[in-house]
Amino acid sequence: MSEKLTGKNYIGNLLASSGEITFKTYNPLLNSENSTLFTEASNLEIDHAVHLASRAFTLFKDTSNKERASFLIAIAEEIEALDLTLLNIYCQETGLTKQRALGERARTIQQLHNFAQHITTGKWMEASIDTQETNSQEIAKPDLRKINIPLGPVVVFGASNFPLAYSTAGGDTASAFAAGCPVIVKSHPMHAGTGELVASAILKAATRTGMPNGVFSNLNSKGIEVGLQLVAHPLVKAVGFTGSIQAGSALLKLASERPEPIPFFGEMGSVNPVILLPNELKNKGYDWANTFAESITLGAGQFCTNPGLILGLKSDALDDFTHHLAKKTQEKSPLCMLHPNIHKNFENNKTTIRQQKGVETITDFNTPIQENFGKQTIATVAGSDFLNNKTMHQEVFGPFSMVVQCSDKKELNDIINRLEGQLTGTIIGDSEDLQSHSSIINNLKNRVGRLIFNGVPTGVETCPSMLHGGPYPASTDSRFTAVGIDAIRRWIRPFSYQNCPDSLLPDALKNSNPLNITRRINGIDSLKSL
Amino acid sequence: MSEKLTGKNYIGNLLASSGEITFKTYNPLLNSENSTLFTEASNLEIDHAVHLASRAFTLFKDTSNKERASFLIAIAEEIEALDLTLLNIYCQETGLTKQRALGERARTIQQLHNFAQHITTGKWMEASIDTQETNSQEIAKPDLRKINIPLGPVVVFGASNFPLAYSTAGGDTASAFAAGCPVIVKSHPMHAGTGELVASAILKAATRTGMPNGVFSNLNSKGIEVGLQLVAHPLVKAVGFTGSIQAGSALLKLASERPEPIPFFGEMGSVNPVILLPNELKNKGYDWANTFAESITLGAGQFCTNPGLILGLKSDALDDFTHHLAKKTQEKSPLCMLHPNIHKNFENNKTTIRQQKGVETITDFNTPIQENFGKQTIATVAGSDFLNNKTMHQEVFGPFSMVVQCSDKKELNDIINRLEGQLTGTIIGDSEDLQSHSSIINNLKNRVGRLIFNGVPTGVETCPSMLHGGPYPASTDSRFTAVGIDAIRRWIRPFSYQNCPDSLLPDALKNSNPLNITRRINGIDSLKSL
Repeated sequence: MSEKLTGKNYIGNLLASSGEITFKTYNPLLNSENSTLFTEASNLEIDHAVHLASRAFTLFKDTSNKERASFLIAIAEEIEALDLTLLNIYCQETGLTKQRALGERARTIQQLHNFAQHITTGKWMEASIDTQETNSQEIAKPDLRKINIPLGPVVVFGASNFPLAYSTAGGDTASAFAAGCPVIVKSHPMHAGTGELVASAILKAATRTGMPNGVFSNLNSKGIEVGLQLVAHPLVKAVGFTGSIQAGSALLKLASERPEPIPFFGEMGSVNPVILLPNELKNKGYDWANTFAESITLGAGQFCTNPGLILGLKSDALDDFTHHLAKKTQEKSPLCMLHPNIHKNFENNKTTIRQQKGVETITDFNTPIQENFGKQTIATVAGSDFLNNKTMHQEVFGPFSMVVQCSDKKELNDIINRLEGQLTGTIIGDSEDLQSHSSIINNLKNRVGRLIFNGVPTGVETCPSMLHGGPYPASTDSRFTAVGIDAIRRWIRPFSYQNCPDSLLPDALKNSNPLNITRRINGIDSLKSL
Repeated sequence: MSEKLTGKNYIGNLLASSGEITFKTYNPLLNSENSTLFTEASNLEIDHAVHLASRAFTLFKDTSNKERASFLIAIAEEIEALDLTLLNIYCQETGLTKQRALGERARTIQQLHNFAQHITTGKWMEASIDTQETNSQEIAKPDLRKINIPLGPVVVFGASNFPLAYSTAGGDTASAFAAGCPVIVKSHPMHAGTGELVASAILKAATRTGMPNGVFSNLNSKGIEVGLQLVAHPLVKAVGFTGSIQAGSALLKLASERPEPIPFFGEMGSVNPVILLPNELKNKGYDWANTFAESITLGAGQFCTNPGLILGLKSDALDDFTHHLAKKTQEKSPLCMLHPNIHKNFENNKTTIRQQKGVETITDFNTPIQENFGKQTIATVAGSDFLNNKTMHQEVFGPFSMVVQCSDKKELNDIINRLEGQLTGTIIGDSEDLQSHSSIINNLKNRVGRLIFNGVPTGVETCPSMLHGGPYPASTDSRFTAVGIDAIRRWIRPFSYQNCPDSLLPDALKNSNPLNITRRINGIDSLKSL
């Protein structure tokens, strides 16, 4: 691995490695460890990073939107400047292709720019002014002004499957910085090198744009201890997490049971149900089988919106679809998975599902394939067997999907109503299908964060209208999104000033409207000054 | 009490009392029980009410903003129509005056109208549209449209001190209805009669405006069991609570530990620190003492924003202020408290504080006063004694305030930084004071939801710029408010449609913009159709 890597933690601007626990990342393609030795952050380093963040907050919270926008853009520039050094390590730590690295880097840079642009408009602050009213009959009503302010230091847990876009400088970090919250990243052990490089880019950008030391720290972790310490630390004020339901739920519990409970946003697992409606299935079943074979195997199925569950009404058309889907899926070349552990879990979870009553495997690889490569698998089961077997409702992270044959609409509806919360739900149907299945569509809507018509759930656009989240356990709080500019809302709180002298108000609330932003004045949106 | 009261639960439109636990409300002025026998909701009734709410949700969530606005206005009308029947029972159950009853009724009606008007504008939905992009070099980006939708059935726990405005048809219920969420109220045992009457008004309004049965239920409770059952019920999707830190924190824990954790918003206790800065204290100390004597004793101090803690720098001026405050406070006639239990807790909590090291009581009543009346009390203590004694940081619900004499600015800052989260903080100072104490103002801002300059914290306007909440334990989630139109945000979640046929979209997202509302189209606010 590159001589650029130190294996140390960034405690603010300083590299430190006083801890005793060490680890290496793994190259799943070569099936061997990478060379850099990483040192897990010690308890003292964790505490130091959080205290630095808390002190940095007193300055960072009062930086202007423009200043923070420059910081975000500088981060994007510094990430690009890492160029091949970053791309190579990304590939070495994940087994993913360079093309995927480029795509994810572009997404990360796009997100940083989106938040920079968003805060420059000032809209995130939602400035609201109610002027004093003096009514002869009543006591004078006070002057009240409300604005969104940052919560404080945020801890970010990145995802294994997106070392850039949902990790060190990913959406959680970018949105927290945009709000004015310092960030402490618990670096993902599977891509600690990628994390260290991105951290160095963030810190260069922070220095270059005059941000206070402590605005960012990057802590290595081999196991769960660093994360637990961070979530429990009294000076941490919010947590962003992307990962498994098991880990996310445990951390949510910890965050809720602190002496001071704090907001915890976790984006967790999902099987992303797809409903095949009968007309469309009959007329275009083969085309959809081709499309879903692509979606299921994309990136070795390692996406949180991977379609792991396909529901249809028992019929010849559904049988044909299932077998064509299996055939097309089998034709794909297996891909390397992120890590031997992820590969092992994939095979174990698949085995568990395949051992459930009524489950029939349609396709699997019987021939040996390369170590750490995921064998894509399509299974099928009757709706009656699926309905009450919660084991089958679990996500299998990897290229796996199960087709459920429902005996009738009622059973289909029952299954939808018993599903846990999902990131996405997908409806495949022609206009007649959609008209005659409105209760199914309605019920699915109730279980998901995003409803897709005649498309695949993989692919999460970073646009403002994206909702990436959903009812528990897709996320820990369905009122927020992890993707898109509204993701900033996780890290802010409204704050009211009553009868505050103009000179002490933040610019956004001053009478003269020096930021020239739209404000809600006595309930009406307006660009006016007062 | 009025023959209008049945003492039964409303399970949707039906009165029921199959339970075995009964209780009566109490008239603290007469020091005797009221006559109506109330029956606590049975487990079956609780389950029935929640199932009805869940079924009602499937219809209620799709009512138009206008329909729900009519419902809210009809509730206001039906509450007014109860007239003296309501006002009399309110007074009998609380010991509060008719004038206070009228004021609180006006506030309740105002809130219902505010939410009716707010949803009519459609703004709460935050409609957002990103149109399809077809770029020759890339895959076509999908059409994405986002809108806020209601969470589902909401359970509301009302406050003891606001039987109307923060209870059965108070801000939590009004905002949940506005969003399209059915409501199940756990009626407060101290004002079960007031609750039953208001519930009857809500149900009349629901019938009159064609809302589905189950949109509202009112459940009596003697102890904590009904509330626990409701928060744990799998079909309940959110909880609104106003009350003590102890009860609120226990319910928050329960809501977080459900198999499906749900949003819990609790507005809890606060001591509402007031900082007296030196110039203003020296020049106008007497005037402020008069003003705070009013604020501390208003409504027998039974307000969540009562100023329970006054901080200043040790000086003759602070001594003079304290003694004048004590004198003016003592001159007020003691008032009846809401209930013998509340009175007992007030006296006990006051005694606990007065027994702490260094606490000196400046004024108290040595002469016997009427049963259940609160003896207003002013105490004082040195900053060094206050700083690390967490017992003294606790709220004493009632007419009590403690003046803390800080030895210097540093000690004052240390105290502010160690305070728990507060609903409000107040700064009393002239322009010179404000300039020379910016770090104190900044630190106080970090601990509170609303910052008041040269005024009293009592009085919570219902305007859009109000924030009633704050860092834990003032509220369980500082990102939301209990008062003002933005209180609706507690009960809604964003939802995305991807490539949805126009005919299946809600009106707010349809191309033709039939609601004629402002929408965010490709990131820009616009009234346009597409």
